[in-house]
Amino acid sequence: MQEELLLTPGPTPVARRTYQAMSQGIFGHRTSRFKEMSAGIQKKLQPLFGTDNPVAVLTSSGTSALESAMVNLVDDGDTVVLIVSGVFGGKFADIAGRYDLNVHVYAVTWGEAADPKSFGEYLNGLDNVTAVFTQACETSTSVLHPLSELADVVHNYNEETLFIVDAVSALGGADMNMTRDNIDCIVSGSQKALMLPPGLAFVAVNDRALNKVHSLGNRRYYLDLRMYFKSLEVDYTPQTPAVTLYQGLDDVLNMIHEETIEEVFARHKKMQNMLRRGIEALELELFVKEDAASPTVTAVTSTPEEIAHIKNTLEKDYHISVAGGQKDLAGKIIRIGHMGFMFPKDMLAILSALEDILSKLRNKNYYGKALTAAQESLYDKA
Amino acid sequence: MQEELLLTPGPTPVARRTYQAMSQGIFGHRTSRFKEMSAGIQKKLQPLFGTDNPVAVLTSSGTSALESAMVNLVDDGDTVVLIVSGVFGGKFADIAGRYDLNVHVYAVTWGEAADPKSFGEYLNGLDNVTAVFTQACETSTSVLHPLSELADVVHNYNEETLFIVDAVSALGGADMNMTRDNIDCIVSGSQKALMLPPGLAFVAVNDRALNKVHSLGNRRYYLDLRMYFKSLEVDYTPQTPAVTLYQGLDDVLNMIHEETIEEVFARHKKMQNMLRRGIEALELELFVKEDAASPTVTAVTSTPEEIAHIKNTLEKDYHISVAGGQKDLAGKIIRIGHMGFMFPKDMLAILSALEDILSKLRNKNYYGKALTAAQESLYDKA
Repeated sequence: MQEELLLTPGPTPVARRTYQAMSQGIFGHRTSRFKEMSAGIQKKLQPLFGTDNPVAVLTSSGTSALESAMVNLVDDGDTVVLIVSGVFGGKFADIAGRYDLNVHVYAVTWGEAADPKSFGEYLNGLDNVTAVFTQACETSTSVLHPLSELADVVHNYNEETLFIVDAVSALGGADMNMTRDNIDCIVSGSQKALMLPPGLAFVAVNDRALNKVHSLGNRRYYLDLRMYFKSLEVDYTPQTPAVTLYQGLDDVLNMIHEETIEEVFARHKKMQNMLRRGIEALELELFVKEDAASPTVTAVTSTPEEIAHIKNTLEKDYHISVAGGQKDLAGKIIRIGHMGFMFPKDMLAILSALEDILSKLRNKNYYGKALTAAQESLYDKA
Repeated sequence: MQEELLLTPGPTPVARRTYQAMSQGIFGHRTSRFKEMSAGIQKKLQPLFGTDNPVAVLTSSGTSALESAMVNLVDDGDTVVLIVSGVFGGKFADIAGRYDLNVHVYAVTWGEAADPKSFGEYLNGLDNVTAVFTQACETSTSVLHPLSELADVVHNYNEETLFIVDAVSALGGADMNMTRDNIDCIVSGSQKALMLPPGLAFVAVNDRALNKVHSLGNRRYYLDLRMYFKSLEVDYTPQTPAVTLYQGLDDVLNMIHEETIEEVFARHKKMQNMLRRGIEALELELFVKEDAASPTVTAVTSTPEEIAHIKNTLEKDYHISVAGGQKDLAGKIIRIGHMGFMFPKDMLAILSALEDILSKLRNKNYYGKALTAAQESLYDKA
């Protein structure tokens, strides 16, 4: 019997070698062995974020990293702007609602990327904005926002205003770099393009954001980044870390650096292109326009009947898991993840299944069509 | 080469079968497969806490469960009492210091258990105490507090006052039961007597504490227990859970229930007795008196020179890891953990090593002495 092919936009498949790394055996987190592992992880993690600063590694879900960015970088009474373009933007709004903040939501039509020009006009109409929060990839719609252009808008508004990016479903798959793109803080999680199980979260800050962290004293303990950065000075963690996930992290970072970060980004782009060209050949609709599409997840739309039939049949007959739409998009899209430990062959697997499903459903011969388009894209013959 | 024997009071050894359970393969946490696993875990977890209520499972370190108990059960401006008998009591104080609370510390001499009578006198001298926090086992000294007697003191003071117990290094090893012992909230972590790697934390509350959770609206998101209990109504989690650790949790709970909870407690008591009788036979000093000793960890004292020599030699020549003292006790004690996936044979291993180390160090023949005492204790021939 075939193993399940997990093509959801998180969780994503974990390599066998990584499970082995996580099964080496537990050891104390106040030992030189941990210290060495932690130091090695920092060295390999920083280039992935595009920073020379230590990256806080939290033992918790990605959501906690979003909250951590909010409570460590924004003070009571501050004015913040949230770019909300889907479910995960809504999560930033939920978190912000728990705190004493003056919150402005810049709503983007679901399925579209934030337009830097319009956003600039919106932002310039507001006073004293301390921070702007956005997703890099809004996982619920498969949009990738133009981070570098948005960062320019924010820093042109006020060079002290922080630009904070939730890259949970993008970091390690989409080309981003805090220094090059002028992003003040990137948060991420372990279970997406980083190829790990869930349980670790990351917060990277540049010097400007780090100063802010040190200048605030909001009420919090577990999510206090000051303690994480202080412990990192000696390669420790303030609280007991999830050691097995650290062992896995060390392994996946080795994998990324063996392939090289550039090649990893290129592989994600290739999978995105294969899938998009294949989807078009199947006469299904791509939910997101080419220039706003994420290299980590692709949303596909059709009639509600076809969407339901495709999702169920993929699961039942082909052991391929994809995700459906969330909230406003429930029943309207399927989302195919292509990030992390995933390869062109996996795109062939799902396109092959889709060819069969649609050939039968529509009584039309799609065999080979999507695969051909994908191959031509992969080998640049399109 | 011999594998390391990890006899620290956390982390503790993880069984091979549990690593296998954690390597089954990742799957979505919004699936019926997760729902079923979560429901099974609840059924097996609740008797371990002695509650019929759902137990919140957080993806985070034990410390976050301490903070969670504090922010969910105590309101701004409330008066709380912390029983501080070592380093981990100090952690409660650190957390409390981040919030707007009126904090009273009931200090207990390190190495002693809180005396219910004296504590009662102290507590009765205070007005409007909303909650009392204590460790079950203070890991830094190896003391087990008399929980049931302390609970009586608290509830006689005021039946609305909550008695909140940090059982990170005790739950699953020391006999405790929220219902029988009248404890309002027990928090714990995965990496001690529960035989897992670190990364999960637990918060169990009785009805009285649950009402309090629902009546408060403190500023928090990730640690908001209301969301965890709401999600548990349908066997989900509010945020992405550490799925591999859940897979492991399911396995260790099966192990505990196969052995039976009563037998697990009895095994811990047996290891405690073996170790204590063996230590006495070696003319080392037990740091904690018999009636205050924890069944999960034992602290041993001697001259600073002997303590340093024993700890280093155990590690270097016998591949046995134990813990030293923390803060005021640094260099003064070694702490031998005997909780979780640990058995009488492991007590023989360390006592055998100690016989050899001390025979050489003191130029005196201890061979067989500690092992004999341990055997007599184990087989009730003392």
